[in-house]
Amino acid sequence: MAKNNTIWNKKDLLGLEELSREEIEVILSTAGSFKEVSTRKVKKVPTLRGKTVVSIFCEPSTRTRLSFELAAKRLSADTVGITSSTSSAVKGETLKDTAKNIEAMNVDVVILRHTTPGAPHLLAKTLEPSVINAGDGAHEHPTQGLLDIFTMKEKKGKVKGLKVSIIGDIAHSRVARSNIWGLKKLGADVTICGPSTLMPVEIEKMGVSVTNSLDEAIEDADVLNVLRIQLERQKKGLFPSIREYINLFGINRQRLKHAKKDILIMHPGPINRGIELTHDVADGPYSVILEQVTNGIAVRMAILFLVTGGKI
Amino acid sequence: MAKNNTIWNKKDLLGLEELSREEIEVILSTAGSFKEVSTRKVKKVPTLRGKTVVSIFCEPSTRTRLSFELAAKRLSADTVGITSSTSSAVKGETLKDTAKNIEAMNVDVVILRHTTPGAPHLLAKTLEPSVINAGDGAHEHPTQGLLDIFTMKEKKGKVKGLKVSIIGDIAHSRVARSNIWGLKKLGADVTICGPSTLMPVEIEKMGVSVTNSLDEAIEDADVLNVLRIQLERQKKGLFPSIREYINLFGINRQRLKHAKKDILIMHPGPINRGIELTHDVADGPYSVILEQVTNGIAVRMAILFLVTGGKI
Amino acid sequence: MAKNNTIWNKKDLLGLEELSREEIEVILSTAGSFKEVSTRKVKKVPTLRGKTVVSIFCEPSTRTRLSFELAAKRLSADTVGITSSTSSAVKGETLKDTAKNIEAMNVDVVILRHTTPGAPHLLAKTLEPSVINAGDGAHEHPTQGLLDIFTMKEKKGKVKGLKVSIIGDIAHSRVARSNIWGLKKLGADVTICGPSTLMPVEIEKMGVSVTNSLDEAIEDADVLNVLRIQLERQKKGLFPSIREYINLFGINRQRLKHAKKDILIMHPGPINRGIELTHDVADGPYSVILEQVTNGIAVRMAILFLVTGGKI
Repeated sequence: MAKNNTIWNKKDLLGLEELSREEIEVILSTAGSFKEVSTRKVKKVPTLRGKTVVSIFCEPSTRTRLSFELAAKRLSADTVGITSSTSSAVKGETLKDTAKNIEAMNVDVVILRHTTPGAPHLLAKTLEPSVINAGDGAHEHPTQGLLDIFTMKEKKGKVKGLKVSIIGDIAHSRVARSNIWGLKKLGADVTICGPSTLMPVEIEKMGVSVTNSLDEAIEDADVLNVLRIQLERQKKGLFPSIREYINLFGINRQRLKHAKKDILIMHPGPINRGIELTHDVADGPYSVILEQVTNGIAVRMAILFLVTGGKI
Repeated sequence: MAKNNTIWNKKDLLGLEELSREEIEVILSTAGSFKEVSTRKVKKVPTLRGKTVVSIFCEPSTRTRLSFELAAKRLSADTVGITSSTSSAVKGETLKDTAKNIEAMNVDVVILRHTTPGAPHLLAKTLEPSVINAGDGAHEHPTQGLLDIFTMKEKKGKVKGLKVSIIGDIAHSRVARSNIWGLKKLGADVTICGPSTLMPVEIEKMGVSVTNSLDEAIEDADVLNVLRIQLERQKKGLFPSIREYINLFGINRQRLKHAKKDILIMHPGPINRGIELTHDVADGPYSVILEQVTNGIAVRMAILFLVTGGKI
Repeated sequence: MAKNNTIWNKKDLLGLEELSREEIEVILSTAGSFKEVSTRKVKKVPTLRGKTVVSIFCEPSTRTRLSFELAAKRLSADTVGITSSTSSAVKGETLKDTAKNIEAMNVDVVILRHTTPGAPHLLAKTLEPSVINAGDGAHEHPTQGLLDIFTMKEKKGKVKGLKVSIIGDIAHSRVARSNIWGLKKLGADVTICGPSTLMPVEIEKMGVSVTNSLDEAIEDADVLNVLRIQLERQKKGLFPSIREYINLFGINRQRLKHAKKDILIMHPGPINRGIELTHDVADGPYSVILEQVTNGIAVRMAILFLVTGGKI
């Protein structure tokens, strides 16, 4: 760990695709140190005092926005936020102009959630402040991927060799994509499982196994990372009915009968209860879903710390 | 006062119905100490430094939201807010899941305004953080009730034996309900007055007098607490016309001719000027409406302090 | 400069019309001192610690709202905000009642953007806290005017004798009006240029030259302050077509051929790229548009400092 400060030298966090194994490991170990802060009586360290963090959320979000905001505040940064409804988007300003203006306000970090894949990458190229991708279309959601992997590592002691099955709508999932990039780099075995209409083309090239059988995906798995179904996709005919989805891919206690006894059930939230997971599974002994949320703050504190030049 | 710390041991503030006389008095006396902070040049004490306060407002609100936010900031807490429009309500997450997620972020206090009576009580049962009810449907609005009572006590020196008349739409008023619970516990005489269509059934069981005559309600009263009329109720036929409401229940100077010379006029705001109160009454010498607002911050500071385990 | 503290004694900043030359100069020199704060590693001074700044924005805004919020935070003030959508505007409360309520919360500064000209002046008269006009209808936008003038002075070393041409929709522009008041008081020569349908009547009385010829406005100009076109005005028939507007008043490189070699191009943002300015001009060597944004924070810090009684 003594040389971590020589490993991380990126200004931005755009995706797990761009990160090396070493960089991912630096984030995870830094997050490990920050996790303790949120359990203190005084949940605050002066690390980013006098730094300015601006979040731009062009899609609705509660937990990611809140998690970033709390991470920044617990590091003593000043935070300001823009959501589409209050932004000069209504005046027709381009994202780049908005961002250049924010940069001109001597801002240190811009957190961006955007519907367009690659929007944070575009900003990162033109901005001096750090850019953190908080989800760009169906492309990547790197902080979610990292908190998922952090949680797996914390629970299982390692990532290398873990068998992780990702269940659901892989094609439209930035969470899946960030998980796959990160898990593969750290040496996990990844299986993806979902309706064939919701599988991306040529996904095998990412080095994952593909199956349409949930039982196959569960068997031998150390971790099930169950994705959220966007119910509006159904209207577009991408899967036949909610009932059929539940029958084929919904996780319930019966389904888990042949699972490993120490399997972890993860979900990025918000859960469609009764669809992706039954109540008893969502709240059951295998579930680490709320621990993911707790770890999200630690991971985001680590990232804010690292991209602003923090040394460890 | 030396033993107050042995009196308050509640994690939450849900309603005045649940509080004992002693608990209400602890809040009032603690608020008395905090009131001075907002008059300082530096309006800030470090009491809640490093604590996290999340407010969830599922109904529009300016003054209550702002009052809580300023109370928290003057105690040096970190504050973050969710309103329905930005929340994952749009993703269909249940309130309980939202709250469990917020809890997982190591939050200390959740302030909730919700349209459903009992929603804060439900959360309080399942959450480790403190829950403060900022208004639940037509049920209770305890911080409003407490700031009303604080103002009465400050102005009159005592609550016991005070004659308080509450005027207006009692049936739909959480403010009325919290006032009645609190005032009765402290020994005040409470009269309620309004159109019979806007009276709750069996309200006498709460130990109040009921009248449909405004003159009767004003005569002998030490305090008039005048409720806001929700104009949309009229469309539902609950009262005949605004004009008739004003004639029967609107407070004007003429109406107050036979009132006590030191009567207090209170209103939780926002006022429908010219309906519940004429301009000259709202801004006149009997009105303590803006002092209620000032006291609201002190009362909310006291509550934030007490529910997070502050000792006095 | 030693006596500046005897020059500024206003509680509010409502418009440049109300300010003397000396008062404007105090703001500019104070802003000069604060500019450095935003370039520090720790961008924060304790000047307004424990003060409360409330911003009320009844029109959408990103940059002005953000700039004020960051200015306040870098002075260590506590900030809370209201936008129309979350305010009790939905409950029909008048602006004055909202403001009196905010005042009762022991607030130090109210920042107001409002569609009605004179709304901040009305508040200032009735409120004890300082009121800062963040734009009132087509009347004034004094902080924008001041940051424009600050930028001119910083770049040109002086304002007296500068030739400043303001281009565009003068009639509807609060930015134009604040520029004209301020620039004339400091001794600049101001020319306004735009379609005759977008010129205010009797504007010559403000001591400016008027032309409909862009070439004439550019010739000899030290500064072009190019206003934003509100595209919705076109629908009202105030100018014939976007294409014609561009032909007559759009600034492009060709147009600038005969301009002074050190001309400054300014724009209050957000730019309609390709309309008021071509890309190469907006991002070109003459443009100081982003420096205006940077200076906006310094100017707003200065104003917050001065209206709250800061001495220099």
